[in-house]
Amino acid sequence: ARSVNLAVIPGDGIGPEVVAEGLKVLHAAVPGDVKFEITEYDLGARRWHRTGETLPDTVLEELRGHDAILLGAIGDPGVPSGVLERGLLLKLRFAFDHHVNLRPARLYPGVTSPIQARLDERGPDYRVDFVVVREGTEGPYVGNGGSLRTGTPHEIATEVSVNTAYGIERVVRDAYRRASARERKKLTLVHKTNVLVHAGGLWYRIFQRVGEEFPDVTTDYLHVDAATIFLTTDPGRFDVIVTDNLFGDIITDLAAAVTGGIGLAASGNLDVSGANPSMFEPVHGSAPDIAGTGKADPTATVLSVALMLEHLELTDAARRIEAAVAADLAERGGQQRSTSQIGDAIAARVAG
Amino acid sequence: ARSVNLAVIPGDGIGPEVVAEGLKVLHAAVPGDVKFEITEYDLGARRWHRTGETLPDTVLEELRGHDAILLGAIGDPGVPSGVLERGLLLKLRFAFDHHVNLRPARLYPGVTSPIQARLDERGPDYRVDFVVVREGTEGPYVGNGGSLRTGTPHEIATEVSVNTAYGIERVVRDAYRRASARERKKLTLVHKTNVLVHAGGLWYRIFQRVGEEFPDVTTDYLHVDAATIFLTTDPGRFDVIVTDNLFGDIITDLAAAVTGGIGLAASGNLDVSGANPSMFEPVHGSAPDIAGTGKADPTATVLSVALMLEHLELTDAARRIEAAVAADLAERGGQQRSTSQIGDAIAARVAG
Ligand SMILES: CC(C)[C@H](C(=O)O)[C@@H](O)C(=O)O
Ligand SMILES: CC(C)[C@H](C(=O)O)[C@@H](O)C(=O)O
Repeated sequence: ARSVNLAVIPGDGIGPEVVAEGLKVLHAAVPGDVKFEITEYDLGARRWHRTGETLPDTVLEELRGHDAILLGAIGDPGVPSGVLERGLLLKLRFAFDHHVNLRPARLYPGVTSPIQARLDERGPDYRVDFVVVREGTEGPYVGNGGSLRTGTPHEIATEVSVNTAYGIERVVRDAYRRASARERKKLTLVHKTNVLVHAGGLWYRIFQRVGEEFPDVTTDYLHVDAATIFLTTDPGRFDVIVTDNLFGDIITDLAAAVTGGIGLAASGNLDVSGANPSMFEPVHGSAPDIAGTGKADPTATVLSVALMLEHLELTDAARRIEAAVAADLAERGGQQRSTSQIGDAIAARVAG
Repeated sequence: ARSVNLAVIPGDGIGPEVVAEGLKVLHAAVPGDVKFEITEYDLGARRWHRTGETLPDTVLEELRGHDAILLGAIGDPGVPSGVLERGLLLKLRFAFDHHVNLRPARLYPGVTSPIQARLDERGPDYRVDFVVVREGTEGPYVGNGGSLRTGTPHEIATEVSVNTAYGIERVVRDAYRRASARERKKLTLVHKTNVLVHAGGLWYRIFQRVGEEFPDVTTDYLHVDAATIFLTTDPGRFDVIVTDNLFGDIITDLAAAVTGGIGLAASGNLDVSGANPSMFEPVHGSAPDIAGTGKADPTATVLSVALMLEHLELTDAARRIEAAVAADLAERGGQQRSTSQIGDAIAARVAG
């Protein structure tokens, strides 16, 4: 018998609702001899409103003792922009060295893409199924900026993108490994080397050098602006993409839109060294406008649970969840189902 | 009789071909009493290969003496990434204080968007017709970065985004003016204020404050990642967008893809103060793979010429070109025409 210590941060808005369905499916999927010990943590906008706290050090240390973290969504319109992002979400990603931010983008059969006509033109064998490996601990996300003469007509504000050979090499190598393990074995670097020559140069050189270790992987390079064009006209060209933190943020939302919306987009924030707990979360936000209405789609959270199980090497359970989601999506059509109805349906397939 | 001093930089690849058509249409459009004195400048990859020069100071000073600059496209695969971008294109934008990088995104009747089905669902009155006002002289484009221990495992590379109240206020005010002059009068700020808190905070505060001068303009704010979703699912929601240099680079390529491709996307790099010549260029690159084949679509250059004429207050001529392009696009269908056939057809409509 194996025991997994899972920390759950339901968060705000639709967070608790989608997490409940994620856990429902988790329990249906894991084998009887694996026991999930779940501890819920009350973090997010509600706690901040009540106590002014975002992530107390004691809580951070408690979270560190877990095998993994499942997070719903954080934020509400009453919290100033940046407070919870920097104080909680990014703090967790940085504190736990989540350098691989993994975001699969797959168009499931039965799901209609906004660019469906373009995809259809390319014939019945055309597939959109790629994964973005977004760097998670560097780039313009480091919080290394400031402002001078704040609030005056002479204000100047800076943001420093910090990029290290160490940080880039580990995420690039991880991306090559993933590409090498896939059928098409293709890796695309996305950056803006023609303008951000220093950061871009470092990324590009490391991308080339690490590539020598993976002669089976085909590589190419795209500027981030050109990548948005391909994502909306020929997303099937991508297999694995590796990119920096900010470009990854932008293109994964676009990739989600193209593959059916952020209601389906899962993500894992991985410390692939295993030294710290990895964290899994849907890409969507807390959507306060639909919280409590039962309209939230829990699928992104369910797929995040599958990523988590894969990371925990409960590969079978992960595969069963993915298959159940695929089957559910294939039959969904225009049906209107509630958050818990979708969760129930997927859980039933997983168990059945 | 009025005389306009126009500097033309045909550049590389398809640059000279599309510029030839742009000038053809220009001559057909301008009234007889306006004389364009055209001086061609040999700048770009060919010159760099021959002489190692990107933009000699003497040439820069000559260009400064003109009323406007028309640029085709710059670059070929033999030039290291960044050399011509930083040494020529961005050097011109910065030297001539092109703080308003204007990029209209309009889906013309007859042009099919990759998301056409989504647009059709929204009914016959749904229009995609917005303009992005991209800041052009600040942000991560300032070239303020460096690298330490270059080429070693301890390398660290930085890029500093520099943002000033002065620089933001002038482009934000320009965007409000444009919004105020349009029918829908709506302005959206796109940034990433929740992560880039210093730069984002400055943008947001100025956006709010300048807005007080324009009570007729409705405003909203989107994070850049969310903006990509709207651009691919509901681009008709946008009227005027104002954003920073890098976000503007990314979302304008996406906007171009959604409105029919970069073969149609025009841009103006404006110093709205008039102190320096403004520069007009298609958004697309030099496309060396199709150079000389007659496959390049000159429409983006023709529309850039229209932006130029508008900037030169030759408003009538600008309107006639836009109308001719619209009429040509409406009738194009699947026809295969060469670069010069398209130019001829538009010029004939303009003249006729
Ligand atoms: C909420 C925000 C800080 C976050 C990010 O920018 O990474 C989100 O957009 C995401 O993609 O997970
Ligand atoms: C070529 C490059 C420097 C340029 C930019 O990044 O601005 C281009 O992508 C553009 O959008 O005009």
